[in-house]
Amino acid sequence: MTSLYQHGTLAMLMGKQMQGTITAAELLKHGDTGIGTLTGLNGEVIILEGQVYQAQSDGQVNHITDLETLLPFASVHFYKPTQALPFDAVDFTTLSDKLQAAQLRNIFSSVNFHADFSRMHVRIAPKQVPPFPSLLEVATNQPEFEMANVTGTVMGYYAPEIFNGPTAAGWHLHFLSDDKTFAGHILDFSASHVTGTLQIFDEFVQHLPVQDAGFRAMALDLEGLHSGITASEGGKK
Amino acid sequence: MTSLYQHGTLAMLMGKQMQGTITAAELLKHGDTGIGTLTGLNGEVIILEGQVYQAQSDGQVNHITDLETLLPFASVHFYKPTQALPFDAVDFTTLSDKLQAAQLRNIFSSVNFHADFSRMHVRIAPKQVPPFPSLLEVATNQPEFEMANVTGTVMGYYAPEIFNGPTAAGWHLHFLSDDKTFAGHILDFSASHVTGTLQIFDEFVQHLPVQDAGFRAMALDLEGLHSGITASEGGKK
Repeated sequence: MTSLYQHGTLAMLMGKQMQGTITAAELLKHGDTGIGTLTGLNGEVIILEGQVYQAQSDGQVNHITDLETLLPFASVHFYKPTQALPFDAVDFTTLSDKLQAAQLRNIFSSVNFHADFSRMHVRIAPKQVPPFPSLLEVATNQPEFEMANVTGTVMGYYAPEIFNGPTAAGWHLHFLSDDKTFAGHILDFSASHVTGTLQIFDEFVQHLPVQDAGFRAMALDLEGLHSGITASEGGKK
Repeated sequence: MTSLYQHGTLAMLMGKQMQGTITAAELLKHGDTGIGTLTGLNGEVIILEGQVYQAQSDGQVNHITDLETLLPFASVHFYKPTQALPFDAVDFTTLSDKLQAAQLRNIFSSVNFHADFSRMHVRIAPKQVPPFPSLLEVATNQPEFEMANVTGTVMGYYAPEIFNGPTAAGWHLHFLSDDKTFAGHILDFSASHVTGTLQIFDEFVQHLPVQDAGFRAMALDLEGLHSGITASEGGKK
């Protein structure tokens, strides 16, 4: 079986810890495929075949080749699919239903698929500067982009409900178009001609920036944490 | 830095999944020190220097030498201490205070110390048979034992609040007396002549029994989960 490696937690972003604490180079030692964000919640990162792409909040997509670039939060894995996806068409709402036979509710898994999208709706987190706000404050004012008839790749993870806090429970998906000009954190989509895979993980490796003073001293508002994550990440269950 | 490896989750025990899903032999590949329980929540396990001990609910302590013995839930690590404990006397209530300079709130750590205990108060989970009840039901009726003036070892973990569910937030400590006749899950203690160590982890590796049908199909009552964990584990913060 395979591992999902996560650096940082969503709770840290809620706790205003948006300073980058892992390099892209170090992250890529733990996987060739994944999602994340850069220092200051600067955009939406998607990693495919060991290449790191960032959608920035004006909509531009950058190929990150400086592997000293820092990330505060990212999830990666080595692509070793468990099975082909058993459907040709899907949208955000029906993704879990179409994978029901795989019984994913209590485990970590990822989907990675190429398709034609009649609709792709994404949001892109805007870069913050210190002193950082909470993820929730950022989430109330994030640029959204929508494109019709775009071809590209969806990559993301499913996390069980009890891991809401360390990460976002439910599906957390990012997108990158084939021509690498359109990308972001997926809010909604409708896809056909789906070709891709499901990968099941038996290990979730949570790496924490234990040397980071801000993280060590962070005080979390646990009351607001779960509702805040739902408001800012809006993962589909 | 070092890893804390956990097989299974506390949430699974709340969800009536108490079937053993990892052998002691496999577990020991991931650590020589740790805590856990056996199939059916059968007692309290403590692992010291690669040796596995089980306190069973009549108070007897067994040295588990059959490494095919199964566990549904256990946490282990390789003993590589970060620092010596900076105090000579401690009780359950003051443990976090005495370690305040180490800023443990947001990270995983373990303590492992030998001491003279003027008081050691433990509980030992009684063995359940299928169909398994919830951990919470078991917790309402658990044998407790108390001993005055006993010498032995405390071993356990601190987990951050956001990991309540996967594990028990706060301190989760087990005890084994030097003469190996008294052990259990610690409810309270008062110690002097403390000699021991603190170990900080930068990785929490959550291993899940993804091949287990019961676990895959489990439906969790998330509303009751957190209060249930507090009621049954009662970890000190």
